[in-house]
Amino acid sequence: MKELQNDTLLRALAREPVPHTPIWLMRQAGRYLPEYNATRERAGSFLALAKTPALACEVTLQPLARFPLDAAILFSDILTIPDAMGLGLQFVAGEGPRFERPLRDEQAIARLGAPDPGAELRYVLDAVREVRRALAGRVPLIGFSGSPYTLACYMVEGAGSDDFRTLKTMLYARPDLLHRILEVNARAVTDYLNAQIEAGAQVAMIFDTWGGNLSASGYEEFSLAYARRVIAGLKRENEGRRVPVILFTKGGGGWLESMARCGCDALGIDWSTDLTQARKQVGDRVALQGNLDPAVLLAPPQVARREARRVLDAYGSGSGHVFNLGHGITPAASIDTVQAVVDEVRTYSAKRRTPAPQNA
Amino acid sequence: MKELQNDTLLRALAREPVPHTPIWLMRQAGRYLPEYNATRERAGSFLALAKTPALACEVTLQPLARFPLDAAILFSDILTIPDAMGLGLQFVAGEGPRFERPLRDEQAIARLGAPDPGAELRYVLDAVREVRRALAGRVPLIGFSGSPYTLACYMVEGAGSDDFRTLKTMLYARPDLLHRILEVNARAVTDYLNAQIEAGAQVAMIFDTWGGNLSASGYEEFSLAYARRVIAGLKRENEGRRVPVILFTKGGGGWLESMARCGCDALGIDWSTDLTQARKQVGDRVALQGNLDPAVLLAPPQVARREARRVLDAYGSGSGHVFNLGHGITPAASIDTVQAVVDEVRTYSAKRRTPAPQNA
Repeated sequence: MKELQNDTLLRALAREPVPHTPIWLMRQAGRYLPEYNATRERAGSFLALAKTPALACEVTLQPLARFPLDAAILFSDILTIPDAMGLGLQFVAGEGPRFERPLRDEQAIARLGAPDPGAELRYVLDAVREVRRALAGRVPLIGFSGSPYTLACYMVEGAGSDDFRTLKTMLYARPDLLHRILEVNARAVTDYLNAQIEAGAQVAMIFDTWGGNLSASGYEEFSLAYARRVIAGLKRENEGRRVPVILFTKGGGGWLESMARCGCDALGIDWSTDLTQARKQVGDRVALQGNLDPAVLLAPPQVARREARRVLDAYGSGSGHVFNLGHGITPAASIDTVQAVVDEVRTYSAKRRTPAPQNA
Repeated sequence: MKELQNDTLLRALAREPVPHTPIWLMRQAGRYLPEYNATRERAGSFLALAKTPALACEVTLQPLARFPLDAAILFSDILTIPDAMGLGLQFVAGEGPRFERPLRDEQAIARLGAPDPGAELRYVLDAVREVRRALAGRVPLIGFSGSPYTLACYMVEGAGSDDFRTLKTMLYARPDLLHRILEVNARAVTDYLNAQIEAGAQVAMIFDTWGGNLSASGYEEFSLAYARRVIAGLKRENEGRRVPVILFTKGGGGWLESMARCGCDALGIDWSTDLTQARKQVGDRVALQGNLDPAVLLAPPQVARREARRVLDAYGSGSGHVFNLGHGITPAASIDTVQAVVDEVRTYSAKRRTPAPQNA
């Protein structure tokens, strides 16, 4: 493997001084890019795109060709694990993901097993290897998975939902069944992320998209406990470098203190949380990643530059910040505005730093 | 007006000692009740039900006939104000509210004016008067309105949304236009709530359903600033008693400290926020209302009793707590479980209290 030329992301995640605040964008390879839409068209479907390593590699690299981003994130989907478990992932146009065979009865739950990533998820590992080769050390590659709880939400509900009524009914009426699913998911996510790391992922991110639908005590019991178990089982050193782990719970702004003690290196912060407050809460325990409102990318470039500076100022001086959106980029995002944000983060954060890297 | 027989809600909102924790449920008059569905059927539509004072009064009282709740809340909709402004409120089956003429151009925004509640919203005031007569002092009546920001979300977007893309584009690209709408809305909400108070509402609640889609600084500028303006303009004394104001921002758990300084008497707390933490943040500034996960009402009664005790224990001893859900009741709620929660809150909270009302 070639040596890493831009390691600002890894250094920021380790809370070491960096010349500028590194930036990448959740779902940076996505529908706002015409070249992405063209490749997806060629693939025939979203799933075919995700399951064809050469095409997944192609779209992973597309945003890096346009913008000087400090990381690549593997193009994939958070639902590859339940798909590999046999639940039958489908994407219905305009509706989001859906499972043909959601987990609804005790026998199916008893039968549930963690897939072997080297077999059923091999296409993901092949994509990781292909992206690493293509990156040739320019920036680090982030691998990822859905959290055990977020996977369970989709697996039980069968699709996204406003209230996750089926999942919540199980949670309150038959918590034993949900815990059984979560145990299997925790093993599956651990194996999956370790396989990505062994294939070349240099950072591991856990997306807990639905953890925010829980109560405070429910979050501890049904989401964080299993994320903690995953993180404890991850390979944290590879190719002679630490492999940092980022945990992102959308709507988790109220639980940052306990999240910061789960063993991760950084927390993803959604846009409703004030970064100044978040930093006070987590102290120097973890780095923070976030948290521009994705809707800012619908505004003119000058407005977005101002909002990007506001995020940088809210984090304040010192190391430990990775700039990102507070949630995934939307298809309606303006490419010019994305360009302006990436540029502003780079120049403004570099300008604010003193020549000597002795940031407090 | 008859004297109030059960004033536990008003006393809890004033953080005075009460013999038991008062309880009411957001959307307690709703689709989980067969008698509600029967009345709605008779009315022909949701809007006809809301606009016919006799029927609105009937459904307002229905939950009180089943459960020993400590308050009535007027049956109405948060979108009556924009409807009275001429935007054309419609309810499409299975889709939620929709406006025929959303606010999309500068001229329409310039023309926007606050309605006269005594004229265009008279049906609401008539319903308030009718409910007060029918209640005959049993429990207090809560009046309500959407917050200026939440109304603006619907008015600009035209309907509910996952990302409120149109609203957010205006917010970032043309904040002047949004501020103009919010100013009109703040006047309209103030007039509307004052008219409800004069008609007999004994508590005023502001529902900021969509405030949680803002960033921390955006919440201050676009939502809280206008809620504060409304609250400053409210009549806070009527029939010789204080009229308390409750502000509820769904997803506002990160902003409780500033919310507690907005002039309200109580904050509604959604179920993702831990009540112990919330109480620490607001100190003795305001009472707290909440925050059972509405999905608990899908579970068996015994489970719901345990979860209700968990909420009471999280608040802890002392006055200033109004039990409620963390969001509106869902149509799938089990009536037996609602009954169990109401019973558990009453008996468990009474048992925990010492005979002398010297709660710390």
